[in-house]
Amino acid sequence: MIQKLITEIKKKQAPVVVGLDPQLSFLPEFLLKKQTELMGDTLEAVSSAIYEYNKAIIDATADLIPAVKPQIAMYEQFGVPGLLVYKMTVDYAKSKGLIVIGDIKRGDIGSTSGAYALGHIGKVRIGEKEYCPFDEDIVTVNPYLGSDGVQPFIDVCNQNDRGIFVLVKTSNPSSGEFQDRLIDGRPLYEIVGEKVAEWGESCMDGEYSNVGAVVGATYPEMGRILRKLMPKQYILVPGYGAQGGTAKDLKDFFNPDGLGAIVNSSRGIIAAYKKAPYDRFGEEGFADAARAATEDMIRDIRSVL
Amino acid sequence: MIQKLITEIKKKQAPVVVGLDPQLSFLPEFLLKKQTELMGDTLEAVSSAIYEYNKAIIDATADLIPAVKPQIAMYEQFGVPGLLVYKMTVDYAKSKGLIVIGDIKRGDIGSTSGAYALGHIGKVRIGEKEYCPFDEDIVTVNPYLGSDGVQPFIDVCNQNDRGIFVLVKTSNPSSGEFQDRLIDGRPLYEIVGEKVAEWGESCMDGEYSNVGAVVGATYPEMGRILRKLMPKQYILVPGYGAQGGTAKDLKDFFNPDGLGAIVNSSRGIIAAYKKAPYDRFGEEGFADAARAATEDMIRDIRSVL
Repeated sequence: MIQKLITEIKKKQAPVVVGLDPQLSFLPEFLLKKQTELMGDTLEAVSSAIYEYNKAIIDATADLIPAVKPQIAMYEQFGVPGLLVYKMTVDYAKSKGLIVIGDIKRGDIGSTSGAYALGHIGKVRIGEKEYCPFDEDIVTVNPYLGSDGVQPFIDVCNQNDRGIFVLVKTSNPSSGEFQDRLIDGRPLYEIVGEKVAEWGESCMDGEYSNVGAVVGATYPEMGRILRKLMPKQYILVPGYGAQGGTAKDLKDFFNPDGLGAIVNSSRGIIAAYKKAPYDRFGEEGFADAARAATEDMIRDIRSVL
Repeated sequence: MIQKLITEIKKKQAPVVVGLDPQLSFLPEFLLKKQTELMGDTLEAVSSAIYEYNKAIIDATADLIPAVKPQIAMYEQFGVPGLLVYKMTVDYAKSKGLIVIGDIKRGDIGSTSGAYALGHIGKVRIGEKEYCPFDEDIVTVNPYLGSDGVQPFIDVCNQNDRGIFVLVKTSNPSSGEFQDRLIDGRPLYEIVGEKVAEWGESCMDGEYSNVGAVVGATYPEMGRILRKLMPKQYILVPGYGAQGGTAKDLKDFFNPDGLGAIVNSSRGIIAAYKKAPYDRFGEEGFADAARAATEDMIRDIRSVL
């Protein structure tokens, strides 16, 4: 799977992923209104509006980017109708040739992690038939439970040529509370990073592993260290843009080959129409605004590579 | 919320929760067959069979226990139809007077954790209407991202009188890989436990907090230490039964008042019919087997209190 991602990144010269995190406040009024007029003030109406929103953004950016990253929480908050639209978004993005990184941050004990893995990146067998229930290409995984919570995901990656990104150093302000605590003089995130490198060895796909890592753009100095600690891991880098990470901060997340990292922006792209300079597109032009913001982001990141 | 749980525990004299973790291999053949004959080998058929299974187990045990704990992974593996049945199970259990602990182990950065919190234990406003999309009473939360990943859950607990159990020391074999690492001479799980106690102060409900902790029965000596470190936390204890924890191991998870812990068993109850001595009930008697196993579990745990 990681080779497929690399191929797309090279083809589009864009180590960039658009985060499809449709907060209610991001949705253009007119899109929501169209659905609530049809279906009332319901979870189904909001979910349908989200789907319209996502489709337009995917259509406007698919030729520029290798991948999208829907954040499942933003769909799960609207219950079952929201999750149906999460699944529809995965399918739609794949139909447009995009790789889908499901930002699900799941992680549990063995058999339970196995269930998450099968449901998201694997296949479930029922009698004579097999199903890929959510069918993302790659998902994010929480490492707090240790190897036996991560191994079921790795097994499923190997069976189905899929990938995972394991949380190592997250982009949020209080990520250091536990992740930075020193263990034998070294921060926990390094210990986790080393483990990710070790897990990744059993899941290689060319020169990179299908087991990658998540490291926030907001911590560039840690990114530099983790880059060296995990040379064969692709790093998914959140925190660019709205959270404060800049292109300059990103340089050291990449390997000397110009590969090894993929940078996410969510609200900076999908809610671009709400802020200058992209507010010139107006609410109706939200998808064009997303395209313009994506082009600028790609240019910005290329400038440091 | 925690007072409501305590009231039910006292009324039933049972600090016990039945884990509704319907692995496909646990489902009685005849239940699955009934649904696949109607709907074919589909995700919908399996999901419907799970719902029948859960309903029968809830009906057979509701008068004995204060709460059930559906493990969302076991539903999510069957995609959207599975999650619909998760929601239906939550509703059905609540209609029978049970408290529902959603074992979701979510955790993300601020606004994203907020979305999970609203969707599971909060309310989502759409125009003039409000919805409780999943509507569990309590959910489990992963602490790896630190305070700003947990605070949104606490805020929602305070707004809606709900609860959370934060993962501190999990029951699985490799939980020690990160959780036991020493930080200034003390294991990470103690650092997390202290933080849980601190978070809990802003969320008190009588003498206990609506912010509780998860500590595995498989690590009784750590349970003893964590009990003292978090005197106001209710501890959700997985790992009894199938995972190896015994009643003797559980004593020190409780406070001297006989309160402070609630013990989960999943496969030991819901798949009891597959193993001696409960296999005497046969497959058709799976719910009676679950009831008998629950009675035995309650007796076993009462014996050490």
